[in-house]
Amino acid sequence: MEIKVPHEVSVQALIGLGPVFLSYVISFLYVGIYWNNHHHLLQSVKVIDGSVLWANLFLLFWLSLIPFASGWMGENKFEGLTVTVYGVVLLGAALGYYVLTMSLLKRHREDSVIHIALGNTLKEHVSLFVYVMGLVGSFWFPRLAFALFSMVALMWLYPDKRIEKHYSDIERSSKGA
Amino acid sequence: MEIKVPHEVSVQALIGLGPVFLSYVISFLYVGIYWNNHHHLLQSVKVIDGSVLWANLFLLFWLSLIPFASGWMGENKFEGLTVTVYGVVLLGAALGYYVLTMSLLKRHREDSVIHIALGNTLKEHVSLFVYVMGLVGSFWFPRLAFALFSMVALMWLYPDKRIEKHYSDIERSSKGA
Amino acid sequence: MEIKVPHEVSVQALIGLGPVFLSYVISFLYVGIYWNNHHHLLQSVKVIDGSVLWANLFLLFWLSLIPFASGWMGENKFEGLTVTVYGVVLLGAALGYYVLTMSLLKRHREDSVIHIALGNTLKEHVSLFVYVMGLVGSFWFPRLAFALFSMVALMWLYPDKRIEKHYSDIERSSKGA
Amino acid sequence: MEIKVPHEVSVQALIGLGPVFLSYVISFLYVGIYWNNHHHLLQSVKVIDGSVLWANLFLLFWLSLIPFASGWMGENKFEGLTVTVYGVVLLGAALGYYVLTMSLLKRHREDSVIHIALGNTLKEHVSLFVYVMGLVGSFWFPRLAFALFSMVALMWLYPDKRIEKHYSDIERSSKGA
Repeated sequence: MEIKVPHEVSVQALIGLGPVFLSYVISFLYVGIYWNNHHHLLQSVKVIDGSVLWANLFLLFWLSLIPFASGWMGENKFEGLTVTVYGVVLLGAALGYYVLTMSLLKRHREDSVIHIALGNTLKEHVSLFVYVMGLVGSFWFPRLAFALFSMVALMWLYPDKRIEKHYSDIERSSKGA
Repeated sequence: MEIKVPHEVSVQALIGLGPVFLSYVISFLYVGIYWNNHHHLLQSVKVIDGSVLWANLFLLFWLSLIPFASGWMGENKFEGLTVTVYGVVLLGAALGYYVLTMSLLKRHREDSVIHIALGNTLKEHVSLFVYVMGLVGSFWFPRLAFALFSMVALMWLYPDKRIEKHYSDIERSSKGA
Repeated sequence: MEIKVPHEVSVQALIGLGPVFLSYVISFLYVGIYWNNHHHLLQSVKVIDGSVLWANLFLLFWLSLIPFASGWMGENKFEGLTVTVYGVVLLGAALGYYVLTMSLLKRHREDSVIHIALGNTLKEHVSLFVYVMGLVGSFWFPRLAFALFSMVALMWLYPDKRIEKHYSDIERSSKGA
Repeated sequence: MEIKVPHEVSVQALIGLGPVFLSYVISFLYVGIYWNNHHHLLQSVKVIDGSVLWANLFLLFWLSLIPFASGWMGENKFEGLTVTVYGVVLLGAALGYYVLTMSLLKRHREDSVIHIALGNTLKEHVSLFVYVMGLVGSFWFPRLAFALFSMVALMWLYPDKRIEKHYSDIERSSKGA
């Protein structure tokens, strides 16, 4: 993911980068959040099999398309079709993450760390719902659709109380307090 | 590996990306599968020496050429020569993986984890055979050759029962069940 | 981060790369130092929560803009506006690192490794001060401002006695000496 | 490091990539060998301080210039000046590796793993000697100089008996044989 260096040196050239920069910021958040969650998800995993491999590749595939979709959207100032394509990529990534989570849950016991940490999938369902709404809306109100997609990213930045609590418990018990 | 952003915003521009996208998908699968298998392969390794280093560099070299070969093929709509070059790169990577596997097997005892996991090399041999067939066919039927190469990628996505079984055993024994 | 290959082969073409090369060197140092410090910082961490995730993404965001800002500045021979933008990116990264450090300190006990290693934040405060001064000065004396930014990078390359001492202690005690 | 996709589809276009491909192969070997050795070097390290950080950044800096130097050389068919610059980059990387090794040796006890593994620095000295000779020769015989640089890469691919032996010993003792 990169922003192309403008040839000119002027405040106007910088302002002209606005849409590119905005789509860069949101896409950076998405990739950062997925990277972080993906890392945590696979860290607590003990069993990997074919369907987990499939789901993982599927997720990474959509994530790998974010720079393309983001660049096309930013360079064309959020024109309708580009926001639709961006939404399709985000929806694909969300589905990939969802399928990966489900594959992992199915292969671990009910009392495993991963079951406790991922028991509540409210955020995942809200995200999928907003993506579909944004996709439909992107034909008429592309900028509103992009605003919806941005709100999903911000929602995922909120601290997840369940996982936090879990980590604190480990910390406390490992210190014998 | 990346898809160049089109200048235009139109459904036609997206459709025009079709061949580029198709070669991107298959190349993504190849790199993902190799990356995954390579990771697993080296994880169970205890002894590394000069010939393993050689074989590893040889494999990574061919993998590093996939973006080039894939891009050239996609941008030229699967013209004969480009599919041939793509097949040569895939064959090179497959040979590198084969040599790496053999080097590792030679340096580990018969009852080591790596011997059990890699005892059966049917998939490897089928892949090499299809690559050679595809290469020969690419002069006359490049699209058919590409279809064959794609089928090899899909074949590797099938869960490998042997390794799965092995991992389940570890899981079970480590939980004392 | 990369330097574009010149079309011509001549000593003049190489000399013409001077400003690009200089900004590449300093940016390389910045990214290298942050990468190193970031790695050490997160290695001694036991508790991660939402605000640490936020601060981490915020830091990585500004670091990801260094190639853009550095390239623009180098290709335009340190023109005023480009140095200002470069300074904003460095300041953003420094703030991100500062917030990340503070988040981590708040979540660990007073006697934890991370508190001992990061107790003294003199360098951090000097850096922030120089960035702000450089930013103000960049409108009138962009080259002087860049020189100030370079001095901050060099300051961070100085061995940090506190951490060194700490590591030596671990080494010594683990060897029973 | 990448090879630019040619616009044309023809055997001539492929042959025209010859010099680019050759410089890509040798540069790939260099980066691969350094990456491998660097990884092994830092793995057996217990103490890191300021001068190790310096040396490490210095080495990575020169390695980061290899794609630039390699691309310039390949696209200009090994013209004199481009081979000289390539040699300067290789010499810089070799010096960085040498300084890093020396910093690490100085900070570890005489009987540590790293002292045993790196006791003999013949290869390092031969490499430095050949780089200097190649650099001088590159003004008159650039292709001969490139051949010398390539031979250094091949020399490093030879199995290093000392390290191999060491690893086998660990393996054997850990298996109780």
